[in-house]
Amino acid sequence: MARNQKPIRSDIAWSVSDRIEVRGKDLPGEILGTLNLGDVAYLQLTGSMPTPEQSRVFNAIVITLVEHGITPSSLAARLTYAGAPESLQAAVAAGLCGLGTVFVGSMEGASRMIYEALENAGETPDLEAIAESVVTDYRSRGEIIPGIGHPVHKPIDPRTPRLFEIAEENGMYGIHIELMQKIARAAERASGKQLPVNATGAIGAICCEFGFPWKIVRGFGVMARAIGLVGHILEESENPMAVEIWQRVEDEATAHIRPQA
Amino acid sequence: MARNQKPIRSDIAWSVSDRIEVRGKDLPGEILGTLNLGDVAYLQLTGSMPTPEQSRVFNAIVITLVEHGITPSSLAARLTYAGAPESLQAAVAAGLCGLGTVFVGSMEGASRMIYEALENAGETPDLEAIAESVVTDYRSRGEIIPGIGHPVHKPIDPRTPRLFEIAEENGMYGIHIELMQKIARAAERASGKQLPVNATGAIGAICCEFGFPWKIVRGFGVMARAIGLVGHILEESENPMAVEIWQRVEDEATAHIRPQA
Amino acid sequence: MARNQKPIRSDIAWSVSDRIEVRGKDLPGEILGTLNLGDVAYLQLTGSMPTPEQSRVFNAIVITLVEHGITPSSLAARLTYAGAPESLQAAVAAGLCGLGTVFVGSMEGASRMIYEALENAGETPDLEAIAESVVTDYRSRGEIIPGIGHPVHKPIDPRTPRLFEIAEENGMYGIHIELMQKIARAAERASGKQLPVNATGAIGAICCEFGFPWKIVRGFGVMARAIGLVGHILEESENPMAVEIWQRVEDEATAHIRPQA
Amino acid sequence: MARNQKPIRSDIAWSVSDRIEVRGKDLPGEILGTLNLGDVAYLQLTGSMPTPEQSRVFNAIVITLVEHGITPSSLAARLTYAGAPESLQAAVAAGLCGLGTVFVGSMEGASRMIYEALENAGETPDLEAIAESVVTDYRSRGEIIPGIGHPVHKPIDPRTPRLFEIAEENGMYGIHIELMQKIARAAERASGKQLPVNATGAIGAICCEFGFPWKIVRGFGVMARAIGLVGHILEESENPMAVEIWQRVEDEATAHIRPQA
Repeated sequence: MARNQKPIRSDIAWSVSDRIEVRGKDLPGEILGTLNLGDVAYLQLTGSMPTPEQSRVFNAIVITLVEHGITPSSLAARLTYAGAPESLQAAVAAGLCGLGTVFVGSMEGASRMIYEALENAGETPDLEAIAESVVTDYRSRGEIIPGIGHPVHKPIDPRTPRLFEIAEENGMYGIHIELMQKIARAAERASGKQLPVNATGAIGAICCEFGFPWKIVRGFGVMARAIGLVGHILEESENPMAVEIWQRVEDEATAHIRPQA
Repeated sequence: MARNQKPIRSDIAWSVSDRIEVRGKDLPGEILGTLNLGDVAYLQLTGSMPTPEQSRVFNAIVITLVEHGITPSSLAARLTYAGAPESLQAAVAAGLCGLGTVFVGSMEGASRMIYEALENAGETPDLEAIAESVVTDYRSRGEIIPGIGHPVHKPIDPRTPRLFEIAEENGMYGIHIELMQKIARAAERASGKQLPVNATGAIGAICCEFGFPWKIVRGFGVMARAIGLVGHILEESENPMAVEIWQRVEDEATAHIRPQA
Repeated sequence: MARNQKPIRSDIAWSVSDRIEVRGKDLPGEILGTLNLGDVAYLQLTGSMPTPEQSRVFNAIVITLVEHGITPSSLAARLTYAGAPESLQAAVAAGLCGLGTVFVGSMEGASRMIYEALENAGETPDLEAIAESVVTDYRSRGEIIPGIGHPVHKPIDPRTPRLFEIAEENGMYGIHIELMQKIARAAERASGKQLPVNATGAIGAICCEFGFPWKIVRGFGVMARAIGLVGHILEESENPMAVEIWQRVEDEATAHIRPQA
Repeated sequence: MARNQKPIRSDIAWSVSDRIEVRGKDLPGEILGTLNLGDVAYLQLTGSMPTPEQSRVFNAIVITLVEHGITPSSLAARLTYAGAPESLQAAVAAGLCGLGTVFVGSMEGASRMIYEALENAGETPDLEAIAESVVTDYRSRGEIIPGIGHPVHKPIDPRTPRLFEIAEENGMYGIHIELMQKIARAAERASGKQLPVNATGAIGAICCEFGFPWKIVRGFGVMARAIGLVGHILEESENPMAVEIWQRVEDEATAHIRPQA
């Protein structure tokens, strides 16, 4: 066929018999015992060591997403573990599969919205006008503005002020967060409802401050939730609920077609 | 039917409109900006805050497992991302699905072996004799002893001495690690080969020092690798290899049955 | 709290000690030994038995999607099996995770496009004009028209004429297929390229003839490919390629950063 | 390094611009419109066309596994779909991940038990004695004999007699099924309980009649359930239960730690 081969290349890590390097650092000598898990995640993703400020902010945004109690995701992991306890990895995988547009997608949506709004905004953008224009655009298309409002955490999502405080304390409260805040206020004016920035909006905006591509922002939720899911599976192994949930649902769901005893 | 319902209960986390608690801690007030990601993983799994010593050792064992370059797992994630870039979570899930008995299973095997060997060993166990007996048992059953030797990292897995050093510096070098070391030496004597403790054996033994149930030990590899996989997917999005791998394999694999051009 | 509970209900199947019903049919008595697998898939999805004509057409569209050789999906399954051979189900799951927008999404895109184009078209729609308008719309938005053209199968995808023939022989060549064909021709006129209906376009159009919701159309590809993937895993267990692929890629990908032997 | 490359080879399928072959058959010309989905699954796995008898028996065993109402697997798929409705493939994948040792593993366990029992049994094996010996072995090891008894379908699993009848009608009731039956009776004698062959035991034994390797037997459950799961996801999209289940479980599970309203 004479297809030209393209090179295959990865810059993340390599190992030989006596050495393992991750992002140019010697794993045993420079990483183990020195860094914390959040810093290694940062190194893995960016290829650079975080500054102390970046470390604090990055750890905070990932940690926010580790655990949120009983969720569809943690239930899927528990139900999967009940059928295949020998494949813990598959139970975590099942739990991750549902981290899509409904629950974590708004995080990447917020990042994308912020990046795109600032794309051609020049050096000294008028954030107020940009926020108004973003809100008008979303409303005219009938689309939900990502990252504002919350069905449970209202009027204020308690994670948001803390995340922004941490960003500020560490010199990372910049134009992207400002724009996210202004978008929320513009949306409140336009709708007459309380729609403050929620945790996914805060994280999406902070990810922009870091300069992370919006396509990878969902990944922070995925890595964080993998940790949370292992906790749920450990609890399920000790104090199970999956079989009980299954049996209750089966009883109720098919009562109308099952012959009665 | 009169089936008795069993209670459904989880002690991990809860949230109401203005408060989110994880393991009894206020997420925004006590966790964000205070803890690092590894400590939160420890808290999530054990329900307790790690001591500074526990924090250092626990972070080290999870970090060891984040990244090991191009692996079947990272390739599965990249190939999945190539087909469904809108579902980053499913690409991570696909990568995790292969963390089974071949690559991370020896970690839990080592933990289980150590726990079971010490089960009825009394207060002052004769570790030397126990190690001999473990090795004899595995060899008589024709089973591979988990956690020793390595196809690439030989004669010594460079992660092992560093992990044991970190354990020692933090007061966590106890009987379980000692037994693991003695098992490796007994296996070397019995086989005449170099079979030092490898990274999965070291981590399995340290997990015993923590008292983690062996059934959850694989989970540390799973949560760690989820972080690593997000890094691979980010690189794949910027500098892809999946399509090239696919086309090369397709060309070669079916050359013997395809009509030649 | 006083949240109102909503009812939980499923109409698909139920079982008691001596009876298992699927879609109102007695599984052992009315289904086993009587129906073929494709018919059962139809029954499971629609709640009705297919007519002989529906059976032939439905079997054909699902069968088309079972197998397409070495694909990113079959490679992901094989690589996963190499790490967790004890979890065959997880290897199939990993292979399915990549059946997203790039490879099977165009099927549901074609269905959706056809349904939406005919939504307000009245009783005797002018298909020619509708096709022109669809093509103009997609081109003005810079979007790819789903279901036409193919990078490999050109000028004609050999599956398409056969699928349409089967539809015609069984009285299922209706307005949706006609519109799909006209869209392809309008796109060819507009672009000056050869863009005949491909297999996913043909299947998408036939799914509209059945009246399947476009949101479930991807599911036919998913169920079909699950069958194909089991075949790949069986071959992998007997004549493996995953470890060889991994080692070749690792060697090449990191040659530029690894110290040379 | 000078690693020797091993060849990469697959015999399943290939395609060029105008032709797609699966297992040596022209897909459009010889398969579409001719075969049913079960026959294609057989072809995909064995490389041979089934005889009419093999077709009937093979379709029956796969169909048996398509659907069993509300199960942990179907719930995991539904909960995943609720979070990521744009990734139907990931919802099916999540549902498959739990098809492990607890629910479908006994199928492969039965096949393996039968094959191993007959391994050195010679040309005219004494099935009665072999069955006694198998039961004695399992009981002495404290292991559960796979494929007999059922928590719900008792005293008799209604699928078993029908499956064996279909096998018999099609000339496939051979020594493996006979042994499975004798094992069940020996287990009943030894335990004093009713332990007839269940559906997974029947299917495991029939898979031995086909000569399928026991390692792939689980795959028939996986491919079948993929079909069933698409049906559950379609119902979930039209008449959802996932969010209601999640909210009920969350309310109940954390009532003991949540502050009361």
